Amino acid sequence: MATAACDRLFINAHLATMTAGIEPYGAIDADALAVTGDKISWIGRPNNDAPEATEIVDLEGRWITPGLIDCHTHLVYAGNRAQEFEMSLNGATYEEIAAKGGGILSTVKATREASEADLAAESQPRLQALINAGVTTVEIKSGYGLDLEDEVKMLEVAKHLGEINPVRVRKTFLGAHSIPPEFAGDSDGYMAKVIHEMLPTIHALGLVDAIDAFCEKIAFSEDQVRQLFKAADKLNIPIKLHAEQLSNQRGAELAAHFKALSADHLEYIDEKGVKEMAKAGTVAVILPGAFYYLRETQKPPIDLFREYNVPMALATDCNPGSSPTTNPQLMMNMAAVLFRLTPEEALAGFTRNAAKALGLADRIGTLEVGKQADLAIWDIEHPSELTQAIGSNPLHSRYFGGQS
Amino acid sequence: MATAACDRLFINAHLATMTAGIEPYGAIDADALAVTGDKISWIGRPNNDAPEATEIVDLEGRWITPGLIDCHTHLVYAGNRAQEFEMSLNGATYEEIAAKGGGILSTVKATREASEADLAAESQPRLQALINAGVTTVEIKSGYGLDLEDEVKMLEVAKHLGEINPVRVRKTFLGAHSIPPEFAGDSDGYMAKVIHEMLPTIHALGLVDAIDAFCEKIAFSEDQVRQLFKAADKLNIPIKLHAEQLSNQRGAELAAHFKALSADHLEYIDEKGVKEMAKAGTVAVILPGAFYYLRETQKPPIDLFREYNVPMALATDCNPGSSPTTNPQLMMNMAAVLFRLTPEEALAGFTRNAAKALGLADRIGTLEVGKQADLAIWDIEHPSELTQAIGSNPLHSRYFGGQS
Repeated sequence: MATAACDRLFINAHLATMTAGIEPYGAIDADALAVTGDKISWIGRPNNDAPEATEIVDLEGRWITPGLIDCHTHLVYAGNRAQEFEMSLNGATYEEIAAKGGGILSTVKATREASEADLAAESQPRLQALINAGVTTVEIKSGYGLDLEDEVKMLEVAKHLGEINPVRVRKTFLGAHSIPPEFAGDSDGYMAKVIHEMLPTIHALGLVDAIDAFCEKIAFSEDQVRQLFKAADKLNIPIKLHAEQLSNQRGAELAAHFKALSADHLEYIDEKGVKEMAKAGTVAVILPGAFYYLRETQKPPIDLFREYNVPMALATDCNPGSSPTTNPQLMMNMAAVLFRLTPEEALAGFTRNAAKALGLADRIGTLEVGKQADLAIWDIEHPSELTQAIGSNPLHSRYFGGQS
Repeated sequence: MATAACDRLFINAHLATMTAGIEPYGAIDADALAVTGDKISWIGRPNNDAPEATEIVDLEGRWITPGLIDCHTHLVYAGNRAQEFEMSLNGATYEEIAAKGGGILSTVKATREASEADLAAESQPRLQALINAGVTTVEIKSGYGLDLEDEVKMLEVAKHLGEINPVRVRKTFLGAHSIPPEFAGDSDGYMAKVIHEMLPTIHALGLVDAIDAFCEKIAFSEDQVRQLFKAADKLNIPIKLHAEQLSNQRGAELAAHFKALSADHLEYIDEKGVKEMAKAGTVAVILPGAFYYLRETQKPPIDLFREYNVPMALATDCNPGSSPTTNPQLMMNMAAVLFRLTPEEALAGFTRNAAKALGLADRIGTLEVGKQADLAIWDIEHPSELTQAIGSNPLHSRYFGGQS
């Protein structure tokens, strides 16, 4: 045994490191992993040079994967939209519901009316569900406030939830999610407010890890989003975009032009858009929950993403109107069943590639020495089971920064 | 207050009684429910004539529904089929996998090789997942043994699981699930064994609450199934049938002819079949998990079931090959999203109509005085949320026969 010491040594483990390479799931010749402080400090076989451990955890053949990363959520909101669901069962489309002042705006109303404490209390069970599913990092967007005060409130709640739960929260400012009622018919006026008032103020408060927008006929045009991205770029804020969800607005190309971390949804992207994403290193975030729930029939072009080596991430898109879910494993299954991702691609979508989509690939998303000890431990015989089962949760335990 | 006494009185509740009628979800003018022994003994408003209670439970506005009933599962099995899933992602069909000796037969091999104790241990987490989702009654089929000894083993395990868990287990003999390898090419010979050896022996052991068969091109013909049903009928065994899942074999009409409790799957049923089911009072058990997982495109004719007043039940169809799920709420959501059932129809599918599909409508499936106190209590504001959310589980607590 080596003289090095560690806090905790996991033994008799199967490791899905999820590092990129030719071995499925990043398999390596190792069955043990050591944690020192909040980092992975050693990976190997104990009969060689394992560090001395304060605590040894025998995993009895269970699998360790990187903690799951949910890189696209809107989980801070008030109210729910079960009534709209009944409307949609009577034939109304997403766009019709939005046009009627329902859709996003009904959640905006409830979210504006909620106190910060109530908003946190309503959102906590959703975050807890993700934590219980093995999530150790979650991105949370604003976008149901649509004014300075309520966008700040949402991001403060997101920050607070990260402080009181064993999970890393990344805060994305999505002021350009929808046009608020007080700017109805004046999307340019609202976008000017987002750019000149909300973005600089909220950024100065330290609440903006990234910026996002909804580039779509029912939201903001490519040109409006370009102005926003120029402003964000000057502040060195990383960029993400809801792009080509309902139609092709050339949003992915715009995002790529700004070297965006990710373009998300992408059902209607074409080959030109995929090529630009590939050149820019922009991650494709695939959101099967919204595709399924909205009964979309146009699938994102998975084969093109593969052909051009665009990394594919997955996320729950947790939101009250088009993806009311907190189940990452179900999203992995839907990505496989609906879009034919392989189980390995699905798991990479919630680990390595999700880390890239948040600009955190140097710290999380794979099991490697020096990375954060964010670990999910599973009662499975093979990681393909995480994707094959329809919405199951075989999580045995999880560690966030080395702590259970 | 009345002089009558009860063991437990739930107050400040919303009640979705799920009794049939014009009020949504069987709503009635009541906010309290009393339990005496294992039965519901009183429903009303406490300021009128509530019984004296040993224990009062303040539900603070939560909803009570009947405990969920999962009326079609194959949850006792060994092994898993993640490898076949990867096969199917490479393009193999369900029928091709079955023709290759994969499919059901790979589970038959693993189940035959498992000891009774191992089989129970492998199945317990699936039953626990259903219990955690609010299920208080579950049907479990045999059909992975396909010989006398192993079919008995499966049903003994099902019985045992019911004895050690707070859940009612109904045991269905599905010897006619597939043709075992030792009878390859001789389905008549195997059916004769099922009829003359297996059925009477297993029935005499008290392990048969109902009989079922798989009527399909890749399994048993309508004529073979008819012989089986004649034998079951002579023994007064209730009948169920896997019918019209992959093609129309006139199975639903056959089932209706024998006054079957249910015909299940039914994607390919036509109007004539629906009419016969209506006349016979046979329940249509809709299984959206298998539809989804097999990427079927032919939907069961929901509008015809509505037109002819055929009760629709829902179930997980929990099985390793075509519906690897233990998530009833997700099945409710899929029934709504994929088949356009309303949230109320979806909940009736897991309560009132599922009770009918098991021949237990006199005892369970609704909240009524005299029925079993099988209760699911939910952290929701409205029961439509149970169906709207994609695979969530807002269960607060559950009671089986009055016991938590």
